[in-house]
Amino acid sequence: MLTATQKRFLTDLFPGDACVLTPEETCAFGADSSRIFAQPWAVVRPETLDQTRSLLKWAHEERVPLFPRSRGTNVVGDCTPKGGGVVVSALRMNRIVEVSGDDFVAVAQPGVVTADLQRACEAKGLFYPPDPASVRISTIGGNVSTNAGGMRAVKYGVTRDYVLGLEAVLPGGEVIRTGGRTHKNVVGLDLTRLFVGAEGTLGFITEVTLKLLPRPEASASVLAGFAALEAALDAARDVFRAGILPVAMEFMADEVLRALAKVTDAPWPQGTQAVLLLKLDGSGETLPLELKRLETALAPSSPSFMARGMGADEEALWEVRRLINPASFRVAPDKMSDDVTVPRGRVAEAVARIRDAGREAGLTVLVFGHLGDGNLHVNIMHDAAGGEGERARTLKETVLGIVLDVGGTMSGEHGVGLTKRPYIDRQIGGRELEIMRQVKAVFDPHGILNPGKAY
Amino acid sequence: MLTATQKRFLTDLFPGDACVLTPEETCAFGADSSRIFAQPWAVVRPETLDQTRSLLKWAHEERVPLFPRSRGTNVVGDCTPKGGGVVVSALRMNRIVEVSGDDFVAVAQPGVVTADLQRACEAKGLFYPPDPASVRISTIGGNVSTNAGGMRAVKYGVTRDYVLGLEAVLPGGEVIRTGGRTHKNVVGLDLTRLFVGAEGTLGFITEVTLKLLPRPEASASVLAGFAALEAALDAARDVFRAGILPVAMEFMADEVLRALAKVTDAPWPQGTQAVLLLKLDGSGETLPLELKRLETALAPSSPSFMARGMGADEEALWEVRRLINPASFRVAPDKMSDDVTVPRGRVAEAVARIRDAGREAGLTVLVFGHLGDGNLHVNIMHDAAGGEGERARTLKETVLGIVLDVGGTMSGEHGVGLTKRPYIDRQIGGRELEIMRQVKAVFDPHGILNPGKAY
Ligand SMILES: Cc1cc2nc3c(=O)[nH]c(=O)nc-3n(C[C@H](O)[C@H](O)[C@H](O)COP(=O)(O)OP(=O)(O)OC[C@H]3O[C@@H](n4cnc5c(N)ncnc54)[C@H](O)[C@@H]3O)c2cc1C
Ligand SMILES: Cc1cc2nc3c(=O)[nH]c(=O)nc-3n(C[C@H](O)[C@H](O)[C@H](O)COP(=O)(O)OP(=O)(O)OC[C@H]3O[C@@H](n4cnc5c(N)ncnc54)[C@H](O)[C@@H]3O)c2cc1C
Repeated sequence: MLTATQKRFLTDLFPGDACVLTPEETCAFGADSSRIFAQPWAVVRPETLDQTRSLLKWAHEERVPLFPRSRGTNVVGDCTPKGGGVVVSALRMNRIVEVSGDDFVAVAQPGVVTADLQRACEAKGLFYPPDPASVRISTIGGNVSTNAGGMRAVKYGVTRDYVLGLEAVLPGGEVIRTGGRTHKNVVGLDLTRLFVGAEGTLGFITEVTLKLLPRPEASASVLAGFAALEAALDAARDVFRAGILPVAMEFMADEVLRALAKVTDAPWPQGTQAVLLLKLDGSGETLPLELKRLETALAPSSPSFMARGMGADEEALWEVRRLINPASFRVAPDKMSDDVTVPRGRVAEAVARIRDAGREAGLTVLVFGHLGDGNLHVNIMHDAAGGEGERARTLKETVLGIVLDVGGTMSGEHGVGLTKRPYIDRQIGGRELEIMRQVKAVFDPHGILNPGKAY
Repeated sequence: MLTATQKRFLTDLFPGDACVLTPEETCAFGADSSRIFAQPWAVVRPETLDQTRSLLKWAHEERVPLFPRSRGTNVVGDCTPKGGGVVVSALRMNRIVEVSGDDFVAVAQPGVVTADLQRACEAKGLFYPPDPASVRISTIGGNVSTNAGGMRAVKYGVTRDYVLGLEAVLPGGEVIRTGGRTHKNVVGLDLTRLFVGAEGTLGFITEVTLKLLPRPEASASVLAGFAALEAALDAARDVFRAGILPVAMEFMADEVLRALAKVTDAPWPQGTQAVLLLKLDGSGETLPLELKRLETALAPSSPSFMARGMGADEEALWEVRRLINPASFRVAPDKMSDDVTVPRGRVAEAVARIRDAGREAGLTVLVFGHLGDGNLHVNIMHDAAGGEGERARTLKETVLGIVLDVGGTMSGEHGVGLTKRPYIDRQIGGRELEIMRQVKAVFDPHGILNPGKAY
């Protein structure tokens, strides 16, 4: 709890509604999309670098825990102020500082919503590729701190691949500037990428410099059904073998198709057991030829149907993908969802074993996701009120065991936060964890930044 | 100097020619491509993880400096055992452990020559994109430790973008394993990328796991000349504006063209002041169309000529680029070469100012390089025996000042090593440097690994 003096410090530094102290109001900042809740002691909303510096100096000296937060869309409890402390919202630092078509660089404050930045880039013929499904509701600061991935990662990589430089305030109030605005830079240790995916544990990011690409002229997609999961995976392999690097390569297994059939007129024929959704980009002129090559690569796996879409038609194909979330709740009222990644060649095995485990537990497991990089979304559907919560939790641990057993990682996109923290030593060795904590201590010797999270 | 006991320890641990102690033999390991020399106390060549562990445990306890070395092609003195110590050669750890066409992953020991790995990948229809000009003479361990770039960086990025996981031995002898073999992974601090570009200062890398891509079916290139540097840069900008992301985009300024004319029949007409060399890749069917788009994008800048090449013809175009090095020595007997990077939009200004500075100093400066990412190679030609060395050195500092002034970095590819170390605080702030050194101390508390280098 904060003392009266501490509260006064905060209200002085953050006048008006920039400081929130009443439990009724702070409680809205107590949880993120993990729905794990803890009551914040206070919420502050810095607007300037100077305010942020004063805050971090004070918190460091007073040993007050700080919990950086942007839109709170993370699903692992990364923003939950567990143990108590002050939530620091980045949402009033939300200026797009610059989009440079000459340097192919954007500079943004952390609270900028990623889709807004993308639009600003597109208006100048530029392209910021990272596209988490949450692109319209999450921010650059959150995306950098979680190294957010997305559909386009197969061809364009993840957020890490676009961060050129950072400005951040460290506990103690010092400002550091890492990297720069050049596309290449190999001077000193790579502090920039150390912040990427650090889940708010090293410093409070106040500005990000991002690399941009030229905007591809056009894109097109293909939706294809297969009589068996193995056929779909063979088809995916043949696409790569043909030397094609699709922008996105999504897949949906059987159970997902059945759930989707409850909410939409499925475009695939009866007997389809798995679906691939592939996206290509390039020039308007060459895309039709590339689509043909793609379809040729899929053909040996005897697709039960293929639909191609360009322009408005393309969106219609992706609409199916977006319906998975609403459709899932037709299967069961509750969802325990997980984001795991396995080596690309082990997807078939992992999916089969996860399904078997679901069958044994008597629960429906929806498996879909970014096949192109082995990143699977595993939704364990259950009825918590009906007493299935415990079984779902046990199944979640079984899934984790399967994933690690095939050489996978417990998180490909979402990070560790609070929810995966109990399992971290099943993946990361003791010495490696110790090093991470010692590196954190270089930045944050008193452990005031997002304590209890990530590693 | 090593004591007799220390020497005995080394000869016991590294029997036969795996330990070299005579000055006549060790002196070959005293310099790298920077040609800065220091006499090693000894050279050892570990073959196994166990040997490496024993070595690093011993060196840590005895406070003996170790200098990791692969092929020694770095040009910044990164391998020079300045101050004395034991050179640790990675060249007997040179096994390609695995190339997996299912997982799109390669596992290699540090001493594997990069071109050998590329060939092994190509034989399986896979593609390891990083292609430093030194690809046939440098290694995976060296490339990772310098975050080597190359021609293809415009489209495919640099070595960092392909490192998924590492095994390294730390001072004290402990082994850490970071990352893994999944294409996505966001669990814990990113120790993997911290090693990338760390110039051998954190640990001795014993194994690297790399991401692979499908191999593109074909490539093609265009060589185009322009009447002025500005026209070439406008053309480059128009290529990006057309939404084209070339694999490579190289340029050569006036002085380079004149040097080349001394060693080859230049394909460009009189009056050509700048040349662009662009590479595209894709499918055999669509490349001709893409080439046409590229040529259309170049057209408004009125090229003085354009030559396109596919297959064997393509190599001929790139041969010109390769002749720059031999041609440069027709200009003057000595070269002081630098690798700097500026924001892409500042290339014209940087080149103009560097040329002016050269003119003022009365020295020819060859400027060429990776225009696509603003990465310039600056060769200050001079006659050291003729007393121009000092002037060249002064000019080099002037160039550095210009580069930093336009928001650039003193190294885009080669790193800092010994040669750029005196200037590092002109680019990196005091607090940032302190953090880098504290982070190093987490891995190497006694500072025995490549002391005096990088940061
Ligand atoms: C419907 C939905 C779809 C999603 N799809 C994807 C997806 O496809 N791919 C994916 O990767 N994720 C996805 N996510 C997860 C989530 O959107 C991402 O983790 C996102 O990056 C979080 O951004 P945010 O702005 O909400 O950050 P928050 O959730 O507010 O914070 C995330 C982390 O960043 C830290 N942080 C925030 N701002 C700062 C700052 N200024 N300085 C330091 N640390 C800071 C926080 O402390 C926290 O650790 C999805 C979530 C939802 C709800
Ligand atoms: C003709 C020529 C062309 C070049 N072109 C390019 C280019 O296009 N792009 C580019 O980026 N560079 C280029 N370089 C520079 C050089 O080739 C690169 O820096 C390369 O990555 C060095 O590799 P190496 O195997 O020679 O490593 P070395 O020079 O032996 O070592 C480089 C660094 O890596 C460290 N190191 C080596 N092995 C290990 C290990 N196992 N564990 C820990 N640290 C280790 C060393 O301590 C040192 O700091 C060029 C050099 C030459 C001579």
